[in-house]
Amino acid sequence: MNEINKLFSEDLKIINIGTANFRDDLLLQGKEVVQLDWAPPAGGNLALIQALDKLAHREEIVEANQKVVEIMMSSYPVLVDVDTALNVIPGMKKNLILHAGPPIGWSNMSGPMQGAIIGALIYEGLAKNEEEARVLAASGEIRFAPCHEHNTVGPMAGVVSASMPVHVVYNRTYGNYAFCTINEGLGKVLRYGAYGEEVINRLKWLEAEFAPVLKEALKLVEGGIDLKSIISQGVHMGDECHNRNKASTSLFFREITPYILETGLDMEVIKRVLRFMKENDHYFLNLSMPLCKASTDAAHGVKNSTIVTAMARNGVEFGIRVSGLGNQWFTGPANMIRGLMFPGFKEEDASPDIGDSTITETMGIGGFVMGGAPAIVQFVGGTVEDALGYSEQMYEITTAENTNYSIPTLDFRGSAIGIDMIKVAETGILPIINTGMAHRVAGIGQVGAGLVNPPMVCFEKAILEFSK
Amino acid sequence: MNEINKLFSEDLKIINIGTANFRDDLLLQGKEVVQLDWAPPAGGNLALIQALDKLAHREEIVEANQKVVEIMMSSYPVLVDVDTALNVIPGMKKNLILHAGPPIGWSNMSGPMQGAIIGALIYEGLAKNEEEARVLAASGEIRFAPCHEHNTVGPMAGVVSASMPVHVVYNRTYGNYAFCTINEGLGKVLRYGAYGEEVINRLKWLEAEFAPVLKEALKLVEGGIDLKSIISQGVHMGDECHNRNKASTSLFFREITPYILETGLDMEVIKRVLRFMKENDHYFLNLSMPLCKASTDAAHGVKNSTIVTAMARNGVEFGIRVSGLGNQWFTGPANMIRGLMFPGFKEEDASPDIGDSTITETMGIGGFVMGGAPAIVQFVGGTVEDALGYSEQMYEITTAENTNYSIPTLDFRGSAIGIDMIKVAETGILPIINTGMAHRVAGIGQVGAGLVNPPMVCFEKAILEFSK
Repeated sequence: MNEINKLFSEDLKIINIGTANFRDDLLLQGKEVVQLDWAPPAGGNLALIQALDKLAHREEIVEANQKVVEIMMSSYPVLVDVDTALNVIPGMKKNLILHAGPPIGWSNMSGPMQGAIIGALIYEGLAKNEEEARVLAASGEIRFAPCHEHNTVGPMAGVVSASMPVHVVYNRTYGNYAFCTINEGLGKVLRYGAYGEEVINRLKWLEAEFAPVLKEALKLVEGGIDLKSIISQGVHMGDECHNRNKASTSLFFREITPYILETGLDMEVIKRVLRFMKENDHYFLNLSMPLCKASTDAAHGVKNSTIVTAMARNGVEFGIRVSGLGNQWFTGPANMIRGLMFPGFKEEDASPDIGDSTITETMGIGGFVMGGAPAIVQFVGGTVEDALGYSEQMYEITTAENTNYSIPTLDFRGSAIGIDMIKVAETGILPIINTGMAHRVAGIGQVGAGLVNPPMVCFEKAILEFSK
Repeated sequence: MNEINKLFSEDLKIINIGTANFRDDLLLQGKEVVQLDWAPPAGGNLALIQALDKLAHREEIVEANQKVVEIMMSSYPVLVDVDTALNVIPGMKKNLILHAGPPIGWSNMSGPMQGAIIGALIYEGLAKNEEEARVLAASGEIRFAPCHEHNTVGPMAGVVSASMPVHVVYNRTYGNYAFCTINEGLGKVLRYGAYGEEVINRLKWLEAEFAPVLKEALKLVEGGIDLKSIISQGVHMGDECHNRNKASTSLFFREITPYILETGLDMEVIKRVLRFMKENDHYFLNLSMPLCKASTDAAHGVKNSTIVTAMARNGVEFGIRVSGLGNQWFTGPANMIRGLMFPGFKEEDASPDIGDSTITETMGIGGFVMGGAPAIVQFVGGTVEDALGYSEQMYEITTAENTNYSIPTLDFRGSAIGIDMIKVAETGILPIINTGMAHRVAGIGQVGAGLVNPPMVCFEKAILEFSK
């Protein structure tokens, strides 16, 4: 006891490293303690620490990652066409429905995803109503696959069926294509799991009237609409091109309108088309997403690269793909979003994180550039300082700075691009995502917007696989 | 000598207040000096100090100024019409030419203003060529008056002649009107003093084809186009609505296009009209200016107010008007602009400060909100930090914070509004203006953009007059 008493004599200086519980106990005993925040690397996971040790400073990884970010940054995606999914999406079939996120079966799907699939089956004429659609969806006659496995991305539920028109984005530099549906606007829409009459009618109108006009207009645009330039301007105009697309939508509207008028199509139709685009501040989301997809797809499959080329959520699981790990998904449970609820909704109403729109963060925009889009905090919550902090933090887990998309408030520093799973695991810093929140029940719609992270386990699984 | 030696002994502590010359001398002698920056109030001008003393903390001034900023902030200007200057501008005449800034006679005008007047006389058919126009302008048959004295504002040379179409902006709250021409775009344009054939042809086209289409479209807009809402969004989208109008132009384009299509006018004409608007990122400047003018005019003429309701430059002099001082101008020499030159031009090529566009700073946007429009520094020079600093400094010389126009990067603080000439003189802080630079020779055009201040003497003269 004497020894212990001596240990705790007045003069003793105590430094506590790590877990704060010890510090708290000492404070209760009236001792002065200097707390040193520290956590073991890789969360103390031994297998992971060994895997990280194995991968540390490997020259072939550094080189491969450099190659991957160079492909991503030098990609030049342009909007060249609008066509029917069945005509253009590789592997698309009449009985195939694409969805957001990693693979998932009907019975495990979240409310909004089931709702969107019900809507798609009614829209395709494969079911007359919700009951028929549910039976058909569960029957095995309909196949489901991730958008990502078909060069496609979809916001929220991300549901794409055979007859839907899709934006066709062509990567000028690498010759690959990416696809995304037309953004339906806000309110009751398929991507949030709504499938009522107005939803189906809008989808039918997009197919019958909107898409043909845009298709004709795009035929007149030599070389396609330059989406990269629009995003580059948009991020200087308060957009981060995930949840804020007001500037980029306006720039796109200015760009496409003269071509639409040049089509010489029926003026009443043209007026409806332009009014629809004009009313939707998020129109450009469904163009920024395939731009990102076209860029990351071109960079996928580079041997030895530890860079994440897809992050996507199906409402139940969050999944990532890594350039050097082929088409395998590494998944973990989708997180709940913290943010601002629309009036009348509570946090419990929200579905877990859902959608392919995290392709924007994968490409270094979205949450990664929110410091340059400070007005976004009015929509997703938090302060302008937080937003700047997130953008700065992302440099710690990425590989390069993308001067194509620079952040004025950070003195025009290029956005952080190329999420390196090794850096994520080593630092414990997760990619920051800002996103919409769907109601957890099918058919209701958006209930808020906020911030979310992927679960760390996705990165841990991928690293363990990589180190094999 | 002993005494003096003692005075400068090693132990002596020296504090120098004000003029740094004394400090520099002492430093040369190897002494340590603490420098205290200080300047006498009002630049040490005794008459001015006495005038300021007289006006300090006068309750009737505080009340009047509060009233003035409330009128400015509660003004609600909307775009209701496009019409010919002669039809709508009060006091407009066929032999009258309006110009930017305070009054000035033909022979004293700067190169760009003379150039623009030559162009206007050719455009009106009053002269066949430059020589005839110069003779006519000098003959006394043509009268000249400031735009500001006719409820009008004009960028750069600000020249308005009888046949020119003007935007008609109506202040819903106070019932007054303001007017501004149509922005011609960049390159060789009248407002920069160019008067060649392409300039005149463009003006003719604006009159014959553009204005009638916009006029018909505006007939269909119930209550007019809400310019206040567009600026409010624009300042969250990287615009400061003086030198950066990209977002607000895009929002206006989105807003007006459906109405233009509804006119049912000839499609070829409509296409040309929309393509013209689409190509011009500064279209909205000629709408933000009359919005500001309509707001400050409503607040002009309030007894006892020391708030500036107009700042304008004619290329030779900078003039201000003050709410409580009637229609008198208080002038000083226009400053040179410091900033970025377009390729091929040198600083000596630039005309001194010119134009009515400083009405934006008078209303608390433009340079006053450039901290929220950081991408502007790529155009006017300086760093993002400077831009934020300017916006913050303006709170020291203004009367209120205008939450209609908030600055995201300052945590949504309302913009500094209501320049109080007393605060300007007391603090020595001049309003910050960002602006374009015209070539000093007529007919050449824009040569750069940058930052400038009014000369302090305008404020000093106004204070001396006020204190009488």
